[in-house]
Amino acid sequence: MDIKPIKFENGKLIILNQALLPHKTDYVECKNVDDVAEAIRSMKIRGAPAIGIVAAYSLALSKKPEKDAQLLLSTRPTAVDLRNAVKFVLEEIKNGRDAFSAAERWRNAIDDKCKRIAENGVALIRDGARILTHCNTGSLATGVSYGTALGIIKMGWEKKKRIFVFVDETRPRFQGALTSWELRLLGIPHDVIVDSAAGYFMKNKEVDIVIVGADRIAANGDFANKIGTYPLAVLAKENDVPFYVAAPSSTFDFDIERGEEIRVEERDEEEVVLPIYPKGTRARNPAFDITPNKYVDGYITEFGIHKSIKEVEIAWKSTSV
Amino acid sequence: MDIKPIKFENGKLIILNQALLPHKTDYVECKNVDDVAEAIRSMKIRGAPAIGIVAAYSLALSKKPEKDAQLLLSTRPTAVDLRNAVKFVLEEIKNGRDAFSAAERWRNAIDDKCKRIAENGVALIRDGARILTHCNTGSLATGVSYGTALGIIKMGWEKKKRIFVFVDETRPRFQGALTSWELRLLGIPHDVIVDSAAGYFMKNKEVDIVIVGADRIAANGDFANKIGTYPLAVLAKENDVPFYVAAPSSTFDFDIERGEEIRVEERDEEEVVLPIYPKGTRARNPAFDITPNKYVDGYITEFGIHKSIKEVEIAWKSTSV
Repeated sequence: MDIKPIKFENGKLIILNQALLPHKTDYVECKNVDDVAEAIRSMKIRGAPAIGIVAAYSLALSKKPEKDAQLLLSTRPTAVDLRNAVKFVLEEIKNGRDAFSAAERWRNAIDDKCKRIAENGVALIRDGARILTHCNTGSLATGVSYGTALGIIKMGWEKKKRIFVFVDETRPRFQGALTSWELRLLGIPHDVIVDSAAGYFMKNKEVDIVIVGADRIAANGDFANKIGTYPLAVLAKENDVPFYVAAPSSTFDFDIERGEEIRVEERDEEEVVLPIYPKGTRARNPAFDITPNKYVDGYITEFGIHKSIKEVEIAWKSTSV
Repeated sequence: MDIKPIKFENGKLIILNQALLPHKTDYVECKNVDDVAEAIRSMKIRGAPAIGIVAAYSLALSKKPEKDAQLLLSTRPTAVDLRNAVKFVLEEIKNGRDAFSAAERWRNAIDDKCKRIAENGVALIRDGARILTHCNTGSLATGVSYGTALGIIKMGWEKKKRIFVFVDETRPRFQGALTSWELRLLGIPHDVIVDSAAGYFMKNKEVDIVIVGADRIAANGDFANKIGTYPLAVLAKENDVPFYVAAPSSTFDFDIERGEEIRVEERDEEEVVLPIYPKGTRARNPAFDITPNKYVDGYITEFGIHKSIKEVEIAWKSTSV
């Protein structure tokens, strides 16, 4: 079964409502940019590359793309794919080209990039590898046939490597349930663990490699990703477990030098304060954290596996989408 | 309001059902050791010192204490207070003394130890301190008026220090809800956070000190505590945040040299696999992890604040309970 989280059919933009997954497979139509902005905010659609794609398509529905672009950009300040996708479509429009074709080009480029990420990253997956991952980075998160971190795992499985995956549940929103659902569709063996147990398994030498995605990567390699990524990176370093970040070049923000410049969204307290808490309990809920480059063994992009972001930038400057 | 998780009144052993907290305050009677063993297993009663106390009292209800002791010991292999409490009562019985009085002595000793832990530990709490803690270590967990880590926080508050507490939610069982409930009763300001956000706040310099409890401390200072403690210790070291362990001498196991010798319980998968997951999802659920001594800045006991466990052992050998 192939997951199609974003469809554009007969002029209609239709998304899989990820907030209802994995129990219910429900598609909703987004009639305009307002609908898309709401879908991003409520996490009906999520994952940095997928958000970029849906934002690109939504501009094809817009009569005032420049203004609507601002609304889109305000929904998720941390993710940079969104900004890059919107910028790409606006420029195509400015150059007199069709917004829908621009969105198609953007999606096809992401599809191609993710496939190449998987091909590049699969070299890191030995037969019998026990891989730990965080959040959800498969087809749902990217809107295309391969994901980023999960795309590598998928390709490893397709290449008949024996693989076992530790799936972080990823509080507060349990994106681990989406990852576990995708792994099950693919038939890949895995166990879900609470986020705070990842260190236990690394220390017990039950994890061979950690691969995660990213929401924004600075020019020095510091990167923002789902809250809980930074502890994984520190624990991996402490336990000599290789730690890799998989992301298309559209997730890199060469304009910012360091992680400190990335703005981290804090989301609603209600995501943390479950009904088990007394009414009025307060919480802090940063949606992302910043992992310094020193913890990263390599960045897996469509161009290869890199130690240095400079390599990515040079390759990226020679591409058009 | 004072919390009384364990009562022995008119020959009846009554416990506060912590599995229903904080929404429902429901007391249940334990008529025999079987009831107590079930209450420990189902976490109606929890927290290493509290389990020790309730086990001690339950032997006063037993007609075959030697045999029942084995059942009690099987319930939580990681916690050592349980073993020490049972051993104490059995020895008192062997010496012809009354089991109930022995249990009373044990409880009073824990009460006294925890108060002294609080008095010793409060020296570490500066005015304005932002303290991060994990799991639940207050009156509920110890069965007495001060807790261990939370007892220090409570005493700091009573001494009019301005305090702010970051409460780890403590997946899988959300003991953070109990901590938040206790802090609210005490009026102490706090925010709940997901466990994986602790690193974010340490890195952002919003945490001044981490204080946790323990379930068993080896002779070299390695210690078992609720899953998620080890990552906190590593992150604290990485971010130069002082990391302390608070526990009565009854939590020390001088018979084992190193943390590797501590058996870690794995609990039911259902604690991890919430209804959001598809049926049949598998999980791993280690209930504890082991933190090596090198991450610990000090051990706070009834005797003082120690760098070396040898000091604790010497002081402990000169005491009777």
